[in-house]
Amino acid sequence: MDKIFLNGTIRTMDPSVPKAQAVAVKNGLIIRIGKDEEILRLQTSDTQLIDLKGRLLLPGFNDSHIHLLSYGYSLEKVNVGKARSIDDLIAEGRNFLKEHPDTRWMQGRGWNNEDWDDKKYPTRYDLDRISTEIPISFVRTCAHVIVVNSKALEIMGIGKDPRQVEGGKIDIDRHGEPLGIFQEEARQIVYDAVPSLTECDIRRMIRNGARKLLECGITSVQSDDLEAVAASEYQKVLDVYFKMAEERSLPVRVYQQCLLPPLTRLREFFALGYHWGQGNDLFRIGPLKLLGDGSLGGRTAYMAEPYADDPSTRGIRIFSQEELDELIAFAHDRDMPCAVHCIGDGQLYMAFDAIEKAMLRNPKPDMRHSLVHCQITDAPLLKKFRDLKVIAHIQPIFLNTDIAIVEARVGKEKARTSYNWRTMADTGVLYACGSDAPVEHFDVMKNIYCAVTRKTLAGDPPEGWYPEQRLTVEQAVRGFTINGAYASGEETLKGSIVPGKYADFVLLERDIFAIAPREIKEVDVLMTVLGGEIVYEK
Amino acid sequence: MDKIFLNGTIRTMDPSVPKAQAVAVKNGLIIRIGKDEEILRLQTSDTQLIDLKGRLLLPGFNDSHIHLLSYGYSLEKVNVGKARSIDDLIAEGRNFLKEHPDTRWMQGRGWNNEDWDDKKYPTRYDLDRISTEIPISFVRTCAHVIVVNSKALEIMGIGKDPRQVEGGKIDIDRHGEPLGIFQEEARQIVYDAVPSLTECDIRRMIRNGARKLLECGITSVQSDDLEAVAASEYQKVLDVYFKMAEERSLPVRVYQQCLLPPLTRLREFFALGYHWGQGNDLFRIGPLKLLGDGSLGGRTAYMAEPYADDPSTRGIRIFSQEELDELIAFAHDRDMPCAVHCIGDGQLYMAFDAIEKAMLRNPKPDMRHSLVHCQITDAPLLKKFRDLKVIAHIQPIFLNTDIAIVEARVGKEKARTSYNWRTMADTGVLYACGSDAPVEHFDVMKNIYCAVTRKTLAGDPPEGWYPEQRLTVEQAVRGFTINGAYASGEETLKGSIVPGKYADFVLLERDIFAIAPREIKEVDVLMTVLGGEIVYEK
Repeated sequence: MDKIFLNGTIRTMDPSVPKAQAVAVKNGLIIRIGKDEEILRLQTSDTQLIDLKGRLLLPGFNDSHIHLLSYGYSLEKVNVGKARSIDDLIAEGRNFLKEHPDTRWMQGRGWNNEDWDDKKYPTRYDLDRISTEIPISFVRTCAHVIVVNSKALEIMGIGKDPRQVEGGKIDIDRHGEPLGIFQEEARQIVYDAVPSLTECDIRRMIRNGARKLLECGITSVQSDDLEAVAASEYQKVLDVYFKMAEERSLPVRVYQQCLLPPLTRLREFFALGYHWGQGNDLFRIGPLKLLGDGSLGGRTAYMAEPYADDPSTRGIRIFSQEELDELIAFAHDRDMPCAVHCIGDGQLYMAFDAIEKAMLRNPKPDMRHSLVHCQITDAPLLKKFRDLKVIAHIQPIFLNTDIAIVEARVGKEKARTSYNWRTMADTGVLYACGSDAPVEHFDVMKNIYCAVTRKTLAGDPPEGWYPEQRLTVEQAVRGFTINGAYASGEETLKGSIVPGKYADFVLLERDIFAIAPREIKEVDVLMTVLGGEIVYEK
Repeated sequence: MDKIFLNGTIRTMDPSVPKAQAVAVKNGLIIRIGKDEEILRLQTSDTQLIDLKGRLLLPGFNDSHIHLLSYGYSLEKVNVGKARSIDDLIAEGRNFLKEHPDTRWMQGRGWNNEDWDDKKYPTRYDLDRISTEIPISFVRTCAHVIVVNSKALEIMGIGKDPRQVEGGKIDIDRHGEPLGIFQEEARQIVYDAVPSLTECDIRRMIRNGARKLLECGITSVQSDDLEAVAASEYQKVLDVYFKMAEERSLPVRVYQQCLLPPLTRLREFFALGYHWGQGNDLFRIGPLKLLGDGSLGGRTAYMAEPYADDPSTRGIRIFSQEELDELIAFAHDRDMPCAVHCIGDGQLYMAFDAIEKAMLRNPKPDMRHSLVHCQITDAPLLKKFRDLKVIAHIQPIFLNTDIAIVEARVGKEKARTSYNWRTMADTGVLYACGSDAPVEHFDVMKNIYCAVTRKTLAGDPPEGWYPEQRLTVEQAVRGFTINGAYASGEETLKGSIVPGKYADFVLLERDIFAIAPREIKEVDVLMTVLGGEIVYEK
């Protein structure tokens, strides 16, 4: 036996054998679970014993919707969200450059002029105080405005009296000189100028991002990474993943939610021989990811009715029903399930409609179609998940931000039937939990806390937001383990502590099944095990 | 929609959505389940409506251990078990020949001279009264003695003063003329002479046998068929199955438990490109079947201790531990699980030992090793199923015969821990139910009755035999549906009434969850549906 983890409080997430004390591991797999004395009988001279000291061991966590590459990328960008003035912004930029002298193009994000005394946007001249040698671009917190320095303008070829872009704006001074401010559609000029990621960049960002995941006990992710590069460069990302998986240098298991529209690109993807399930235990091609609508905060989530706080809009839908039908049918016919980003109820109805049509036209066994976010729902929608056997990817941590805005956006009546996770869990909907990081942090303990308390991290509202929709701790942990494994079609390989499954574990400082729910968010991860190897220890 | 089955009492065997009223089917798959009015919304002009009239609809039954080909073969043999004299025997033989004039070699089975006045074995001269043109061989009820006619002797080349066989006996008269009686090892001479089955024979026997299964609501079997032909002819059977599955003329879904020892044959099997899982939804290559020991009735099941009613023997084991280890490891290393026939506790220990060694030496994810029969057990053995995650193939109908002999064979203490199905079910052992037909009949209602009453079909003992080991009806039905599907690695494709699974159903005359357990054995199957087609209707 390679390793024996003993003296633990093991929750297996397998209803037939829910608890154990020790687990024996060999060649990366779980060989046996049981009581200490039983498992110690398997000890050989080369067995490493790991004393769990009575603590809670769970299956390794599975974040069912994340952007790993974008998260890794964000680690190389300067966060200027805390700047309280333009001088602060400059200081943070200079510090970052000192620490990262090899930076080719300095990217920052998070500035908010509303936090500053003069409330003015920064300009090229402000950023030139950081550097005139290295191009710089800083994105506003809303992501709709970017400011760049003079070096960036030079590279971008933007000079006096620039040609404006439809739906966007390049700010100029009274002489026609660009101020370095690019709004809305004009931002694309900046994006196009930033050097595209090399294979080496992608590899480093994935590795560094994934290592952080291990600190939170996450051993598997379902990651939407193709959005981090130009659409035409998706092969570069897939190829890096395949290589890392082959070399076994990928720190976590990744199931790729492949953002591949338009149809021409999806056609090319299949023509190149890519297909669902391709890969190994570390990396696999997952579903076709489709971005159906926008966000609740920005009122771009597509609603069945106008926004309560802005009756002029129902949000936006990225695809017409026909386009969505065509994309989903195309993937479905090729045995690739779809994962559709749907936040508004209008978009949810559209996605269900497209999935139902694909299934009725071409019934196929065991297609794991899924919807991502699934925030604004009504009773018929909640039933459709079950009826069409569609998986719901939910992000309980979103409550931390959304509690403040849901009722304003959709009204009380619809708020009551939205974020209805307990109803999902109790009526047999297969829900899998995630963070959507870097949108929210991927700290699983904070995420579980939100699921079981229905409160913000600050503890509001004190009675919980629609507290009847609280998940039990067991339900929340299932959402982060076995249900996630089901969502990726790997429920026989991982997600519970059962002989023959991958030895992926997380050891927690405290027993989250025993403590007060409000304390869960502070619980530390002490150890993470992937394929039997201890890959993180606090 | 192709079909809508409505107005039913549907038990799905899916714990998350346990009941429904209607089910919609298209292209052989379940599309939706729900209430009548919901499902009727899917009706199109070409939809066939099937009124279930409130009756119980279950997933199609899965018999997890059967010999389909042998059963089909038995339909072409004359059963002389009811003969009360040699004259009776002759009369039955003559009748059979009249009904089956194309018979090439007439085979019969079941005679028992103990039932007759003179208690003498029949001879060639008796059977010659049936025919002198067609060879005839009748096997005694115990299977250890065969009698043949003169035509058969001629074909076999057995004349005056035949050479005797070690371990057997060819009975002769005082002139040295053979009497047509072949005992023990001498039987092989008869077996070798009977014409081997042609592809056409095999196809007909499978088809005729399988049609009978449909009458009992069985839509899937795990069948051990290679024992029905000479060991060297296994390819003939597999090839017939592959052809029938390809042409879609196979009446039920078959997962082949492949009896392939010795190791040289197993090597050849892999060298020819056969492998586990090969096939389609109708036929798939299953596990390596190994016959580990004998039977309880014949005191050939291999026990850990001598038989209580014959301390001179512990039964027989077909393989040494080393041979069993080698066969199981060989298959395990090639991703083929093993299904080991084990009736005695001694053989169970040996099989677990071999499986454990294979797994410890070469851990592999999700290997579905199984043991077949699993009759004589003790507490440590019952725990091993769970610990090693080994599937138990059980045959509740065996109680009908075995209640009378278990305590005599193994003593009261071991009898109490044997046939312990409720303990298995309650402690998370994965058990799948079957009949071992033609050893017992495959009538699922009688089998479930035995599981939930622990009585013989005659109702003995009145309080049930170790009644604390009764399965619930739900547990028994799971054993014949979803658990069977798990045993063949097809739990995502069948075994429960869930959208996306094969539309395999059985409709029962009465609700076995509601009636008195004693009445279950008489419940009729009204309809069997396989892949959405009504393949049997009473």
